[in-house]
Amino acid sequence: MGKMVYKAASGHGDIEVVGGIDLCCEPQDGFPVFSSAEEITVKCDVIIDFSNPRALSPLLRYGQAHMIPLVLCTTGLSESQVKQIHECSKKIPIFFSRNMSIGINLLISLAKRAASVLGDDYDIEIVEKHHNKKIDAPSGTAFMIADEICKCKEIPFQYVYDRHCQRKPRDKNEIGIHSVRGGNIIGDHDVIFAGSNEVITLSHHAQSRDVFAEGAIKAAYFIKDKPAGLYDMNNLAK
Amino acid sequence: MGKMVYKAASGHGDIEVVGGIDLCCEPQDGFPVFSSAEEITVKCDVIIDFSNPRALSPLLRYGQAHMIPLVLCTTGLSESQVKQIHECSKKIPIFFSRNMSIGINLLISLAKRAASVLGDDYDIEIVEKHHNKKIDAPSGTAFMIADEICKCKEIPFQYVYDRHCQRKPRDKNEIGIHSVRGGNIIGDHDVIFAGSNEVITLSHHAQSRDVFAEGAIKAAYFIKDKPAGLYDMNNLAK
Amino acid sequence: MGKMVYKAASGHGDIEVVGGIDLCCEPQDGFPVFSSAEEITVKCDVIIDFSNPRALSPLLRYGQAHMIPLVLCTTGLSESQVKQIHECSKKIPIFFSRNMSIGINLLISLAKRAASVLGDDYDIEIVEKHHNKKIDAPSGTAFMIADEICKCKEIPFQYVYDRHCQRKPRDKNEIGIHSVRGGNIIGDHDVIFAGSNEVITLSHHAQSRDVFAEGAIKAAYFIKDKPAGLYDMNNLAK
Amino acid sequence: MGKMVYKAASGHGDIEVVGGIDLCCEPQDGFPVFSSAEEITVKCDVIIDFSNPRALSPLLRYGQAHMIPLVLCTTGLSESQVKQIHECSKKIPIFFSRNMSIGINLLISLAKRAASVLGDDYDIEIVEKHHNKKIDAPSGTAFMIADEICKCKEIPFQYVYDRHCQRKPRDKNEIGIHSVRGGNIIGDHDVIFAGSNEVITLSHHAQSRDVFAEGAIKAAYFIKDKPAGLYDMNNLAK
Repeated sequence: MGKMVYKAASGHGDIEVVGGIDLCCEPQDGFPVFSSAEEITVKCDVIIDFSNPRALSPLLRYGQAHMIPLVLCTTGLSESQVKQIHECSKKIPIFFSRNMSIGINLLISLAKRAASVLGDDYDIEIVEKHHNKKIDAPSGTAFMIADEICKCKEIPFQYVYDRHCQRKPRDKNEIGIHSVRGGNIIGDHDVIFAGSNEVITLSHHAQSRDVFAEGAIKAAYFIKDKPAGLYDMNNLAK
Repeated sequence: MGKMVYKAASGHGDIEVVGGIDLCCEPQDGFPVFSSAEEITVKCDVIIDFSNPRALSPLLRYGQAHMIPLVLCTTGLSESQVKQIHECSKKIPIFFSRNMSIGINLLISLAKRAASVLGDDYDIEIVEKHHNKKIDAPSGTAFMIADEICKCKEIPFQYVYDRHCQRKPRDKNEIGIHSVRGGNIIGDHDVIFAGSNEVITLSHHAQSRDVFAEGAIKAAYFIKDKPAGLYDMNNLAK
Repeated sequence: MGKMVYKAASGHGDIEVVGGIDLCCEPQDGFPVFSSAEEITVKCDVIIDFSNPRALSPLLRYGQAHMIPLVLCTTGLSESQVKQIHECSKKIPIFFSRNMSIGINLLISLAKRAASVLGDDYDIEIVEKHHNKKIDAPSGTAFMIADEICKCKEIPFQYVYDRHCQRKPRDKNEIGIHSVRGGNIIGDHDVIFAGSNEVITLSHHAQSRDVFAEGAIKAAYFIKDKPAGLYDMNNLAK
Repeated sequence: MGKMVYKAASGHGDIEVVGGIDLCCEPQDGFPVFSSAEEITVKCDVIIDFSNPRALSPLLRYGQAHMIPLVLCTTGLSESQVKQIHECSKKIPIFFSRNMSIGINLLISLAKRAASVLGDDYDIEIVEKHHNKKIDAPSGTAFMIADEICKCKEIPFQYVYDRHCQRKPRDKNEIGIHSVRGGNIIGDHDVIFAGSNEVITLSHHAQSRDVFAEGAIKAAYFIKDKPAGLYDMNNLAK
């Protein structure tokens, strides 16, 4: 992802990449690569992090020490790490999101609105499609969508992954989640609202993992001059 | 549509159809049919109108005289008729919409939000599909969607219906509107937001014209006890 | 279905409905309804059967005795009943299919061809959507599609209905079958072939149960003057 | 495309890239690049050509002189050049196709079969989607699909690109072709058959231009040991 962020940044005339952070620290086209946030020797306006949970602590320390806004896109953080981020955001601006695609975050917000407007008369199902090497199912994004929809519903929902042996009609409080796997599909998500005589479908199709890098760049522009605080894609999307 | 509203109403235990209005006024299963609003001899809580512009004036007069809430679903009204409705709604509650599908109205509101969030980096295109007997293209609903999207954009948009002879890249301010015609398709509308490496598509599929009757029934429930005023699907959808 | 076949037949000027067979034998618009094939007192060119397995035996006897071509659309027949049909078709023309939609039968034939052309490099998944009252999952049609695809593959396939607890990449010999349930969807079937950097999807959308009646009418036209033998939708589709 | 074919070839352990042909002839990772077919100094089993019409003549001469099978993927050839290829294929095996995607060629063959089976009762429409920089519309592939469908129909078809000002029902002999443009969509093609109460849709989604390189590699494997003759994707797909 580091290379993808670099590539995405290169497409913007007003961005200069002044350094990278990576364990295998060979310098790139004209900028140094440091093995950890502690080694940074250059000045910058924003740091984008797409690495792994272990890199978080030095990054937060560096950000606080130099008052540098951070864009944190790392997944798999522990609860105590998320708490650390919250603490740190009282002193510096931090942009933090589990999915940096603007489209996915929009999809979630539209799905919540649809679920709230349509009420209990429409059945909700999610179909997600990914490549045949993906080992987790459903996708984290499918769960994000379902979880957010549940938050705006009064009755508790149950996720259903398999109907093939049940021989019973669908329950009102089900959300069916279906995981199609095949080829090298990057990531498709359909949220289906099926009512009486009409079906509304909200779809997101990712064509390349570049969307995540581009989301991070947008977040960097956004957070550059913001006051201390915790921001996410909802802020970006106004 | 009168028959469809009757059928839809019959599915609700707490609704009684006490009369119809139609030029060919044969009584139906247990209720009289009047040739005009002026002939009505029964008492009712709400009147649903799915007829034609000529029926409007007597209906507004009757509604005002008897303080009956009106659900007006007639299309093709003149500007002066729309003004009449506005006037009349100062005295009685009136629900007025050009498309009674809850799903379509939701689609429009979601499309507006998407257009506003995604900004100018995403190209907007609309594909609508209808049966092969439909003579107008694009559909009125496709225009409604496009018009509403334009309202939340700062730059003026141009609708494009044909690209086959142009040999030039797409302009930023185009909204392509494509009218597929075939078989007896009831009505499909896709609103496409195509950006860099991701595509968001908002789709509505109508399976039967019953959706419009059902929307009118929902509007009737909604308006029954409301104060005087003008209401539309946005009120219904909270 | 009997009423739907009658309705579909009425749309054809050169078809006359001369009688029906139903347990509750009230005469219809101008034609008698018999309680069983044994009671038939009218002459006809073809009999269309959309009833239940118990009606089969008298029907086959009647067809043989009067040399009347039969269109058999009943599902749920036992193996011995299917054998009976084969036997009987040596004497009279019989059209026999589990799904009378021309589109579904075409879909199956296209899916088989696609599976054979694309070989093992493309992963096959089926997504079917039906109304929320349907108790069986996957649909019979989804199984028909999968079974037919398997016939043209050399390696044995395994149907997969649930991936949510597995944490492993997709196996080459899986066919994922996903059952979406919601609203009053009549029946959608997608057959997905996902390969390296391309996805081919073959879709069938049924808009009304009338398609089955119309398929039966087409079969009746087809079989009317054929010699004894067993025919199915593949014959119809040339 | 040359680089993409090289990349695709590198993924196959039994392929060795022994040379390239390009005007700017800098050597690549371990193999020479020649400025024209006339300069080739290495031995090879197959030559894949994804260049431009001007490169054709020297290539055909070289192929004939050294009895090397050719895979020709260049578009925009003149009629006389196509004739040259036919002539040359009497002496050496030549694989020639305007679109090297296996999926697209399958789509076309399925669409032809569908058009032939469904007959005149189903309306055919094509929707294609491409990036916002594409200057031609409809896509060459959309035309290929439409042209091939027409070949298996008895009545002449008319391509329709715009319905917005017509106010008339669809004609039986229309094929609507719709060109959606937006973002950086690689290439989607939907062929829609809309009949009475059912719609069959055959879709191809290209996720990356790599599919064309991969098709060329498959063609190279196929043609390597074939006798002289002209081959295309239909041969590849059995």
